[in-house]
Amino acid sequence: MPDKQRVCLAYSGGLDTSCILAWLIEKGYDVICFMANIGQEEDFEAAKAKALKIGAKECYVENCNAIYENVYLLGTSLARPVIARAQIAVAQKEGCQFISHGCTGKGNDQVRFELAFYALQPTIQVIAPWRIPEFYETFPGRDALLDYAAKKGIPVTSTKSKPWSMDENLAHCSYEAGILEDPDTEAPADMWKLTADPLTSAPDEPEDVTIDFEKGIPVKISSRSQNATDPTKLFLAANALARKHGVGRIDIVENRFIGLKSRGCYETPGLTILRNAHIDLEGLTLDREIRALRDQFVTIGYSRILYNGLYYSPEREFLEASIIESQKTTNGTVRLRLYKGNCFVIGRSSKTSKLYDMSESSMDEIGSFEPSETGGFIKVQAIRLKKYGEAKKEAGVDLVKRA
Amino acid sequence: MPDKQRVCLAYSGGLDTSCILAWLIEKGYDVICFMANIGQEEDFEAAKAKALKIGAKECYVENCNAIYENVYLLGTSLARPVIARAQIAVAQKEGCQFISHGCTGKGNDQVRFELAFYALQPTIQVIAPWRIPEFYETFPGRDALLDYAAKKGIPVTSTKSKPWSMDENLAHCSYEAGILEDPDTEAPADMWKLTADPLTSAPDEPEDVTIDFEKGIPVKISSRSQNATDPTKLFLAANALARKHGVGRIDIVENRFIGLKSRGCYETPGLTILRNAHIDLEGLTLDREIRALRDQFVTIGYSRILYNGLYYSPEREFLEASIIESQKTTNGTVRLRLYKGNCFVIGRSSKTSKLYDMSESSMDEIGSFEPSETGGFIKVQAIRLKKYGEAKKEAGVDLVKRA
Amino acid sequence: MPDKQRVCLAYSGGLDTSCILAWLIEKGYDVICFMANIGQEEDFEAAKAKALKIGAKECYVENCNAIYENVYLLGTSLARPVIARAQIAVAQKEGCQFISHGCTGKGNDQVRFELAFYALQPTIQVIAPWRIPEFYETFPGRDALLDYAAKKGIPVTSTKSKPWSMDENLAHCSYEAGILEDPDTEAPADMWKLTADPLTSAPDEPEDVTIDFEKGIPVKISSRSQNATDPTKLFLAANALARKHGVGRIDIVENRFIGLKSRGCYETPGLTILRNAHIDLEGLTLDREIRALRDQFVTIGYSRILYNGLYYSPEREFLEASIIESQKTTNGTVRLRLYKGNCFVIGRSSKTSKLYDMSESSMDEIGSFEPSETGGFIKVQAIRLKKYGEAKKEAGVDLVKRA
Amino acid sequence: MPDKQRVCLAYSGGLDTSCILAWLIEKGYDVICFMANIGQEEDFEAAKAKALKIGAKECYVENCNAIYENVYLLGTSLARPVIARAQIAVAQKEGCQFISHGCTGKGNDQVRFELAFYALQPTIQVIAPWRIPEFYETFPGRDALLDYAAKKGIPVTSTKSKPWSMDENLAHCSYEAGILEDPDTEAPADMWKLTADPLTSAPDEPEDVTIDFEKGIPVKISSRSQNATDPTKLFLAANALARKHGVGRIDIVENRFIGLKSRGCYETPGLTILRNAHIDLEGLTLDREIRALRDQFVTIGYSRILYNGLYYSPEREFLEASIIESQKTTNGTVRLRLYKGNCFVIGRSSKTSKLYDMSESSMDEIGSFEPSETGGFIKVQAIRLKKYGEAKKEAGVDLVKRA
Repeated sequence: MPDKQRVCLAYSGGLDTSCILAWLIEKGYDVICFMANIGQEEDFEAAKAKALKIGAKECYVENCNAIYENVYLLGTSLARPVIARAQIAVAQKEGCQFISHGCTGKGNDQVRFELAFYALQPTIQVIAPWRIPEFYETFPGRDALLDYAAKKGIPVTSTKSKPWSMDENLAHCSYEAGILEDPDTEAPADMWKLTADPLTSAPDEPEDVTIDFEKGIPVKISSRSQNATDPTKLFLAANALARKHGVGRIDIVENRFIGLKSRGCYETPGLTILRNAHIDLEGLTLDREIRALRDQFVTIGYSRILYNGLYYSPEREFLEASIIESQKTTNGTVRLRLYKGNCFVIGRSSKTSKLYDMSESSMDEIGSFEPSETGGFIKVQAIRLKKYGEAKKEAGVDLVKRA
Repeated sequence: MPDKQRVCLAYSGGLDTSCILAWLIEKGYDVICFMANIGQEEDFEAAKAKALKIGAKECYVENCNAIYENVYLLGTSLARPVIARAQIAVAQKEGCQFISHGCTGKGNDQVRFELAFYALQPTIQVIAPWRIPEFYETFPGRDALLDYAAKKGIPVTSTKSKPWSMDENLAHCSYEAGILEDPDTEAPADMWKLTADPLTSAPDEPEDVTIDFEKGIPVKISSRSQNATDPTKLFLAANALARKHGVGRIDIVENRFIGLKSRGCYETPGLTILRNAHIDLEGLTLDREIRALRDQFVTIGYSRILYNGLYYSPEREFLEASIIESQKTTNGTVRLRLYKGNCFVIGRSSKTSKLYDMSESSMDEIGSFEPSETGGFIKVQAIRLKKYGEAKKEAGVDLVKRA
Repeated sequence: MPDKQRVCLAYSGGLDTSCILAWLIEKGYDVICFMANIGQEEDFEAAKAKALKIGAKECYVENCNAIYENVYLLGTSLARPVIARAQIAVAQKEGCQFISHGCTGKGNDQVRFELAFYALQPTIQVIAPWRIPEFYETFPGRDALLDYAAKKGIPVTSTKSKPWSMDENLAHCSYEAGILEDPDTEAPADMWKLTADPLTSAPDEPEDVTIDFEKGIPVKISSRSQNATDPTKLFLAANALARKHGVGRIDIVENRFIGLKSRGCYETPGLTILRNAHIDLEGLTLDREIRALRDQFVTIGYSRILYNGLYYSPEREFLEASIIESQKTTNGTVRLRLYKGNCFVIGRSSKTSKLYDMSESSMDEIGSFEPSETGGFIKVQAIRLKKYGEAKKEAGVDLVKRA
Repeated sequence: MPDKQRVCLAYSGGLDTSCILAWLIEKGYDVICFMANIGQEEDFEAAKAKALKIGAKECYVENCNAIYENVYLLGTSLARPVIARAQIAVAQKEGCQFISHGCTGKGNDQVRFELAFYALQPTIQVIAPWRIPEFYETFPGRDALLDYAAKKGIPVTSTKSKPWSMDENLAHCSYEAGILEDPDTEAPADMWKLTADPLTSAPDEPEDVTIDFEKGIPVKISSRSQNATDPTKLFLAANALARKHGVGRIDIVENRFIGLKSRGCYETPGLTILRNAHIDLEGLTLDREIRALRDQFVTIGYSRILYNGLYYSPEREFLEASIIESQKTTNGTVRLRLYKGNCFVIGRSSKTSKLYDMSESSMDEIGSFEPSETGGFIKVQAIRLKKYGEAKKEAGVDLVKRA
């Protein structure tokens, strides 16, 4: 008798993916469950037991440790290719022809997972139940899922579902859907999970933090309550500091890749601090023209690529070479003050970068710079503008009088 | 006997421009003084009397009222072309062949003023004493200026000069030079003039603010302490709210147009609130692709143009047409919460923009959208990525295994 | 008895769309045929008779006259929204719920047509037989279509099909597929339809052409053989001149919107001449910075939008406002020489644009420009570069010695 | 007695730099002459003898062999940093505190040379006689130079000066000034030096050329008359082919860095062929998104950097890393046909790049691609456009009816 077809399912232990697990088994597949440990707080053992009880052939809990590699531009969207890679590794190990997930058919995550799946293993076939009419017509709402769970003996945790959905990893937590779908409804104070409330729980005492960077990578963080140099510990220390002082919340309406607008609330505690420090240091150490090119082209392009799920792509590789090139001189120290939601920069220095020169920039000293030269600089810049003024005059436009 | 040559000097009443005034008279010019009222707090009458006493033929105090026109992208640099236009108007009225100012030869302001002068009146001739070796070699420091002032009978206010320089207008106050030239020296708490200290003086009670926009322009602001619809009053109300809650301070190292780096601290209270609200509303009302084009090209280009003093230029006119075009749909209301330095967005709505559709974006409803279509969208996006994965495989690179 | 469902089918008279017509009737639809007259040579009357014979309820031949409106950026892809608009107008007049076309499922044209359909009438439903498995599995090749045509009594023209496919309109003719799918196979000399062969048929005598522009629009063309000012006649005159002298052929491998690469040969005779002249004139009349912004952002963005079929979109409207703004000063005359495939610019002039000033640009005259100023311009530009040189030296890199 | 100050002068042997040489000696400097051999035809020995006769302490003729390194983006402007580096090497060897050249004060070359000098040796001091009022007022025209030459015993070649100026190197020849300053005056047929006249001297027989590339670099060229693989020989072979068939002339009005417009005629024979082939091959081998990013950001930025003389700069290094990254897959062969000024691409192939797949792109085969997926792709793209259509309808705009 031939082997059954095998599916590797991204499993969370919740109602949706438990029903999907049962449904796939019902459809005749052998199912291997996959859970990604990306730093979120979760009872992986209980979830694993549940998967096996429902009928999974196996359940892997994988530590996706790649996320610490490049802290600089790690963000929400970057969790997906990391998870996808770990899931494909399990699928390959288990000889699965199929891969499945519980993402809805309207969001970004389905795109991010699947584009990564296809790049990592071009022959893989995807089963996305929430896009299969047979599935979504069978389960039009939560009640239908509950009925199915009851019928299949799937244990349902009695806790009342929160009126929004969440997604958490080491770097951030996102909140969307449910009551948040009205963009004019304020996010409830008890929704935020990773940061203290700046208005009510953050301490009255500010805390100063010092962060050192080498080639754009944070290598040391220190404050009165935290000290770390190991990459993971440094990242956790940044999270702890931001959490304590309520730093890193945003609430926005964004444009999903598929063309719908969507309201999301995000907490990104540690990264917010690290990013503020990083950008500030670049002011001191990065050449003006490199910064302009990087900001306009690389940053905007790279963000779009990650947001749209194109991590495994030629263009991401292409832009990443530029990012590394741009960071050669980003060496130095930034001092920040955290206080009730704020992350103020209060000073920065660099021992190696000589782009900033106090006496040269000084308004009070002449230094090696000859101010009389600047007149020529301005005069040459003005050649084009004088023509503009003359052309306006000929056209009867008085730039001076115009109200 | 022929008339003397006439200079129109931008005059502040301070030591520098008073000495420049006396020096120009000594050099044989008739000098017309010009003071710009751009919303800063200043004793214009005293300064005017001082100018006339030193020997100015006339002293104009001009209200540069154009700055309220387009609140959207008004910033620090925009004060300069506004002042330049008023000064050229005085120079033309008084028949001046020359125009003069007290800007240093290392900063941005000399460039901004002079490029505007040349566009507004291509035949004007600029006298910039701080770029003339004869002048700056005669006055190498404050003591030489004080000696000269004593010799010329120029009254010097006894107040001790602050160890930094300031520039203020209705929209902002900037601080640089002096002790701020060390980028690692924290800005002193008593330096900030336009905003309450978030740590010590901002109230413990947050304040919610509602701002309405029409075609991108704020038309109404209201909170428990402020209410305004008139453009100037609205702007002042935004300033008052931000000042009270300590919103709008930054401390950065930037790249001047002439290629030097420089450390500056800026307070931009009201505009910070208005900009946060404006950007948030665009999330709800602006098409994704227009926003992407506007952010990457228009915003970055326009900022560079204003920063570099190219307000009166063909390229500014060109980009401004795009900005207006982009704002047709920016209509709606944003709700903010101000609290000790923070300006949180808590909700937004629009009666006219239909780009956001709750039921369509909803994760819980199918709506008019057919989720099964998204599979095809992803599959087509993946065509290129599958080739990428295959090419990697042929090149012996295992994207899955790579640590 | 209720009316049947109505489809408006884009019909060409060829084998494919004739079979689609018969197939749609077989599926129970009333079919209204639509043919677009966009300047190609075709026997519309014969095709109309054929459609009615097969069973179409009606057959419209519509003159899509909008294409002459804005010659400046009219190109291949622009024919599609023009056709789509005319077809939707017919569909609306005839009360069709459906719209259909014979485009393949791998090309750009399906995307261009359908995106325009959906924008023009968001409720329209598209039937694309070459994407419907039932259809394309029934008709896997030409033989199956011929059998079906025979069975349905569809007359088939006996002429042997050419080993490539063509698409023609007033502005251009494109060739792809068939033998052209091997990108290393030279396009056969007898394939090109709209231009003389530069090697064998173009005359030995060159012909000089003069083109006048107003606000970027060509308003007059004249040569020893052609003279026109009416927009359509001017366009046809440009086509006739380019055809005679073999101007406007290209052969490229391009990237389709759906992510596949594709080899295409294109003839764009008149537009090639007009575009060369237009670009050259802008050299004389357009400000440097406007040109740089337009070239980098507007041109590239606009091309992508048109190529991808997003003519009816917010972003096309947004960019078009910039294009119009940029053309205010593009007034003048360009002289060209056509000769055996070449279109050489030999001179240009403008009565209104004063951006170019012979005496000012002259290397032999000092003019109003003071060369000594340029030293300061260079010195200020060099501030940053001296730091670069010093940093290299400190890092042990000798820029001079490096081979 | 202390040594005199030493100047390293870029010397050509012509009237201008001979007078500058004499003038610098008159001003009390020891002058070291420097001549750059960059592939132009010139009698270096005669010029050297002349320099020594006028009084130069030494005269170096240096072979600037670096220009063959990276053919890909070598252009006109790239000759300057190459020359500057060789001249600085001589200046360092001879212990010169000063460096001098004969460039005019209105052109680009002064900027390109001096920015390179300052980066290569930040302490160097530049003497640019054509920007020094004492010099240019002494020598307002050719006659004053001739008088000075007679007085100083400088031999003047009797040949009548051509009514334009030229600059030649291995890659190109440029023509500007003189009669060319009227942009409507046709360049005389006898001006062009490096290419046959397409109308009168190019052969009647076309010639096919095959060029092979590895990582974007041409590695082999072959035709019935030329064959080469060595980089320099390959470059010379490309020049010979283009010269013979009249390929590579342009006539444009451009924008100089200093803000003036200028008319220039350029011949770039071999590079025109190599660039056409290179761009065509990228169509076949370069990923769509990398190409889009490269074209919009890297190419435009790099061109501006080189044109403005910023070769030795952080931003050039930064962008160059991207160029190299982008060329990893540019491997293959392009076939061209040269004929009377034309350079037609007739075919291309690549053994290693698999981005193009005939059966997949084929309109006649289904292949591995499922056309039915494309429907979903289009439907998802249309989400935003349907909203656009609906918003227009609500605003009373009928996109279908609009003429």
